[in-house]
Amino acid sequence: MRNTFGQIFTLTTFGESHGEAIGGVVDGMPAGIDIDIDFIQEELNKRRPGQSHITTARQEADKVELLSGIFEGKSTGAPIGFIVRNNNQKSQDYESMRCLFRPSHADYTYYNKYGVRDYRGGGRSSARITISRCVAGALAKLVLKKVGITIRAYTSQVAEIALDKDYTQYDLIMTDKNAVRCPDTGKAEEMERLIEQVKAEGDTVGGVITCVIKGCPAGLGEPEFGKLHADLGAAMLSINAAKGFEYGDGFDSTLKRGSRHNDIFKSRKDNAEGLETTTNHSGGIQGGISNGQDIFFRVAFKPVATVMKEQPTVDTNGNATTLKATGRHDPCVLPRAVPIVEAMAAITILDHYLIAKTVKICP
Amino acid sequence: MRNTFGQIFTLTTFGESHGEAIGGVVDGMPAGIDIDIDFIQEELNKRRPGQSHITTARQEADKVELLSGIFEGKSTGAPIGFIVRNNNQKSQDYESMRCLFRPSHADYTYYNKYGVRDYRGGGRSSARITISRCVAGALAKLVLKKVGITIRAYTSQVAEIALDKDYTQYDLIMTDKNAVRCPDTGKAEEMERLIEQVKAEGDTVGGVITCVIKGCPAGLGEPEFGKLHADLGAAMLSINAAKGFEYGDGFDSTLKRGSRHNDIFKSRKDNAEGLETTTNHSGGIQGGISNGQDIFFRVAFKPVATVMKEQPTVDTNGNATTLKATGRHDPCVLPRAVPIVEAMAAITILDHYLIAKTVKICP
Amino acid sequence: MRNTFGQIFTLTTFGESHGEAIGGVVDGMPAGIDIDIDFIQEELNKRRPGQSHITTARQEADKVELLSGIFEGKSTGAPIGFIVRNNNQKSQDYESMRCLFRPSHADYTYYNKYGVRDYRGGGRSSARITISRCVAGALAKLVLKKVGITIRAYTSQVAEIALDKDYTQYDLIMTDKNAVRCPDTGKAEEMERLIEQVKAEGDTVGGVITCVIKGCPAGLGEPEFGKLHADLGAAMLSINAAKGFEYGDGFDSTLKRGSRHNDIFKSRKDNAEGLETTTNHSGGIQGGISNGQDIFFRVAFKPVATVMKEQPTVDTNGNATTLKATGRHDPCVLPRAVPIVEAMAAITILDHYLIAKTVKICP
Amino acid sequence: MRNTFGQIFTLTTFGESHGEAIGGVVDGMPAGIDIDIDFIQEELNKRRPGQSHITTARQEADKVELLSGIFEGKSTGAPIGFIVRNNNQKSQDYESMRCLFRPSHADYTYYNKYGVRDYRGGGRSSARITISRCVAGALAKLVLKKVGITIRAYTSQVAEIALDKDYTQYDLIMTDKNAVRCPDTGKAEEMERLIEQVKAEGDTVGGVITCVIKGCPAGLGEPEFGKLHADLGAAMLSINAAKGFEYGDGFDSTLKRGSRHNDIFKSRKDNAEGLETTTNHSGGIQGGISNGQDIFFRVAFKPVATVMKEQPTVDTNGNATTLKATGRHDPCVLPRAVPIVEAMAAITILDHYLIAKTVKICP
Repeated sequence: MRNTFGQIFTLTTFGESHGEAIGGVVDGMPAGIDIDIDFIQEELNKRRPGQSHITTARQEADKVELLSGIFEGKSTGAPIGFIVRNNNQKSQDYESMRCLFRPSHADYTYYNKYGVRDYRGGGRSSARITISRCVAGALAKLVLKKVGITIRAYTSQVAEIALDKDYTQYDLIMTDKNAVRCPDTGKAEEMERLIEQVKAEGDTVGGVITCVIKGCPAGLGEPEFGKLHADLGAAMLSINAAKGFEYGDGFDSTLKRGSRHNDIFKSRKDNAEGLETTTNHSGGIQGGISNGQDIFFRVAFKPVATVMKEQPTVDTNGNATTLKATGRHDPCVLPRAVPIVEAMAAITILDHYLIAKTVKICP
Repeated sequence: MRNTFGQIFTLTTFGESHGEAIGGVVDGMPAGIDIDIDFIQEELNKRRPGQSHITTARQEADKVELLSGIFEGKSTGAPIGFIVRNNNQKSQDYESMRCLFRPSHADYTYYNKYGVRDYRGGGRSSARITISRCVAGALAKLVLKKVGITIRAYTSQVAEIALDKDYTQYDLIMTDKNAVRCPDTGKAEEMERLIEQVKAEGDTVGGVITCVIKGCPAGLGEPEFGKLHADLGAAMLSINAAKGFEYGDGFDSTLKRGSRHNDIFKSRKDNAEGLETTTNHSGGIQGGISNGQDIFFRVAFKPVATVMKEQPTVDTNGNATTLKATGRHDPCVLPRAVPIVEAMAAITILDHYLIAKTVKICP
Repeated sequence: MRNTFGQIFTLTTFGESHGEAIGGVVDGMPAGIDIDIDFIQEELNKRRPGQSHITTARQEADKVELLSGIFEGKSTGAPIGFIVRNNNQKSQDYESMRCLFRPSHADYTYYNKYGVRDYRGGGRSSARITISRCVAGALAKLVLKKVGITIRAYTSQVAEIALDKDYTQYDLIMTDKNAVRCPDTGKAEEMERLIEQVKAEGDTVGGVITCVIKGCPAGLGEPEFGKLHADLGAAMLSINAAKGFEYGDGFDSTLKRGSRHNDIFKSRKDNAEGLETTTNHSGGIQGGISNGQDIFFRVAFKPVATVMKEQPTVDTNGNATTLKATGRHDPCVLPRAVPIVEAMAAITILDHYLIAKTVKICP
Repeated sequence: MRNTFGQIFTLTTFGESHGEAIGGVVDGMPAGIDIDIDFIQEELNKRRPGQSHITTARQEADKVELLSGIFEGKSTGAPIGFIVRNNNQKSQDYESMRCLFRPSHADYTYYNKYGVRDYRGGGRSSARITISRCVAGALAKLVLKKVGITIRAYTSQVAEIALDKDYTQYDLIMTDKNAVRCPDTGKAEEMERLIEQVKAEGDTVGGVITCVIKGCPAGLGEPEFGKLHADLGAAMLSINAAKGFEYGDGFDSTLKRGSRHNDIFKSRKDNAEGLETTTNHSGGIQGGISNGQDIFFRVAFKPVATVMKEQPTVDTNGNATTLKATGRHDPCVLPRAVPIVEAMAAITILDHYLIAKTVKICP
């Protein structure tokens, strides 16, 4: 169970790496939204492997078919079902995996939990299943665009190479200009070289993705168990290989005194209604609710478990053996995780945008 | 909405700092469990202020009344409603807050969201509402105890003072021996001194709590949106002042190569069924599902926003003013957050323990 | 589990007949609503036993305490916790029930499901637990009143005595004028006499309650699994002793031809926007969504199982025995079920009213 | 929203009559179940139109594709996505519907709710969307079969022709022997003749379907808002054209005295553990929980709204006009609703079967 995310705007997903198709159902899509199918396909393309020399070479066409919920170019309010066919189902590639538990993959835990296991390419635990998230994220972005909310994620660290400035110091449009999806051109080159080197060694490397949400009105988030940052955290931690989440000053806030960490209120520069803050240590969320400032957070990704080096392991009979992965090698998952982070953020924010409409009787 | 946590074993909470009572409903409590009311009260006592010189001096009796779901000392499977009366409802203390937005509190965001605001002591955003979590966590622990799962949390960092060893190097029973709830006696003294000094300055300080779950069987967690670490993350990020969450190697994993980060499988030392791993970078969770190793994670807490120093702010009419908090002062929330972390972990683990029972037809 | 009803406006209940208290939590209450506590108590009083000679003589004070979510007379958007103390907990009354399974009560099924059973007065299956529904229903009515929606239920049949006219032929205010809660004064007298006679025989009698919702705008209800009538049906079937539900022409519609059953559209008499229908066989709901006409439905209640006559049964050891109930006798549950029907209808309609606000981006 | 049914075993559906495909996602399917694809297709075929002269002549191939969650012939515990392509998308057929509101269809309510409307063949409100339910129901039946639970539905009334015996008097296998799906051969012929006559008149006719569940263990159902009959009721009322639901003696129970309606317990004839009852007025459910006896209920279906006679109506501009349906004509929906009733019952029962596994710690 638990293949559904969200409360009002929800995504239910299905599919395995080497099954017939990956797909999902988006429920709660507001009616009357123009559905730009090209935009959705472009968003989906961003996660596709084989886009550059630093990601896996696997070619995946990944053409999305929207099957319902749209009529004459507009959303109807009915659920939007969609599928992406898996074209590359050569299961013989994975025959050698049948009796092995790959280290730090989900092989052992799935086998333990279910008693059966689709060992082909990770099955349900494959990164391919994030396809559904990209499609739903693109749909969410179409709605958020209408209400002035934008979301940008970027690679802010690869292994030991980290950006030394915060998001306000970059033109985030530069994120699209390089293969690592990092807005700092110089650092991007360093990261790229590191990834190439790690790839040559048959190894993998992790890092951090930063995400910024602009234009979010005050009032999104529910005070107790639906805190906006808790839902964003759950969304991010549901992405493969995510190991940590922090928002605002995050773990660094533990090193500040309260008097320094507090964000002081002031009237808005543009004299518009509402207040703004002189600093934003809070990351745009206070008491679990957006305060109208930029929302930003960071997600840590471990190095992916599939390395090209030989590793000891145990087979399904409990006998010691060794594993030597063959075929595709994805030395750094971050560039392709950037669109997933954006997609999950978009889904979460839209869900809360819709929930917030139910708080008062006269809107 | 969203005052309910969990899927099968659920907690629904209510209450404000200065309302009549704090309380909740635990649904999905398995039937036939011996309910040790003294244990529940003791667990609740752990979060009580006024226990030591380094926490707020506010005296709260906090006596829990269990109102239903228990008969002849055993859970009946019916929901367990409970309340804790608020004895200290002197709202005049807070009259001065009526027209102010305290920096980095939830005052402004609540006002924005709801149009009305219970300004007395933080209202719904007060730390007092964690009372309900302690009660539910104690109930969950009673069940987990029966199946051999134990949960221990401790303060592992206060501002710049951090433990330099991991949890395996400590006797966690020592956590109960000092006011900061840190198993390293020497570091605990350092932390205590720092908190005293910060208190004297009218300031506040944050830190990190580490939590360890032992005895958890393999197979808990749902692969897609109910990943065990994502639910633990959401649980922790729902605690007041939490700013970050990481499990296993967390953010540090970003600095390792995949070949070093992978946990190698081997047969179990005790020859029991199942495998174990030679290392535990994964933190006991792989692909979102427990693998039978210890589960551990860390939660970052910011310094609490209520400082005794004068701060500039804005009133509800948008006019600049200053705020000088009076009365209680909680210089470091960590000691009292330790039991909340344990409680939320217990609720999350029990929920998944019950969910896991539905995966196969023959149990 | 499953002690929560609703999606946005939700009620979570707890409590047993002879426990400490009955109570609940209302989540999703819109903020800024004036909370008229007297009104809530009056609504609750309507279900109280001992109001007339034809219901059970048990005296229950049933004073509601609202514990949270209200500040300065208005709802704050926070959850509203509430309790009603059980004053009458003489469990010795029920000692004889300990080892018996009463026919057609929940004794046997609870025991089978949970292994333990609170045998005092039905425990969780007692009619007393509907107290929570009355409180939540009253809160829902306070909101519905603001948007012009009114709900009236009445007794339309007691055993073989049935009203021969539909709701449009009665002044529903007359419902409050007699003990059976029937708007037809003549029929009410007949019903009353029948109940008196049945009571004298130590027996019980069932019947039908009709409910009418006026002022409901078009557009409430979700097309697939949240059809408005399906949610109303589930709400009604959750009331103790309910055995059937029908809306619009209900079971009688099976006897009509489609050409006769269809409701023809026409412009509204008042020239307002929207259409109305010349007939209302549909009962105000088409395709699961309200169409702006009156919504009406009927709920069948069986005769309650507690009769004063001696009945054969089996004890918990499987031995044949006889049961002779003593003490309270409620010959006809209908008068007291009328307010519960109204309450559950109010909860359901408000929930859908709030859900409907999320369908479009520009409200 | 609300396109998902169930708690543990859930069905999420999507699709419109004339969109690309109808489909859904089944989540919570227990792992390790043999998936008999032929059985699923056969179950789906039962709802197909064009099977006999008394249903609509529309030919629909309706071939199901199972896209995920199955590996080497067994369920893996992952969600099962599936689609059925719509082959017959000639929207010109429906061009005339664009500006009309058909009486007693969902046209007007959808338009009101969403502002846009897929007018082709009823769109989301079409009977075609029940395809997803049949597929999920077949999956549920595969599991229920393993635990000895069987479900049979049959037509028990068509307009004024009703069976005069209850289900225990029939061999339900006979249901499959005639086009109306009625186990009483004589009555079936009468019903068939009536439907032919109604068809010749261009009219439609409704009726009642009875459903019987055998082999259901005691203990399924949750006491408060998850009563087994309330969930069955919601499931049935979610089927197009359903207007009423009753279980056990249903509306007839209102005419009995309590002393007559009570079901007396006795030891089981087969000396097995547990009790049975001498009568079954309760319909196998007491206090919302199954008691081990047969569960049975009845569902009323109105005559479908599409009649071939000319009817007055109003167009989207509010102008009076007339409607004359052309093309397909389904004079009686009951034969094709029989498999939907079975499917929804199977989904509901399996969901509760899985929920019941979480009630006790030692299974």
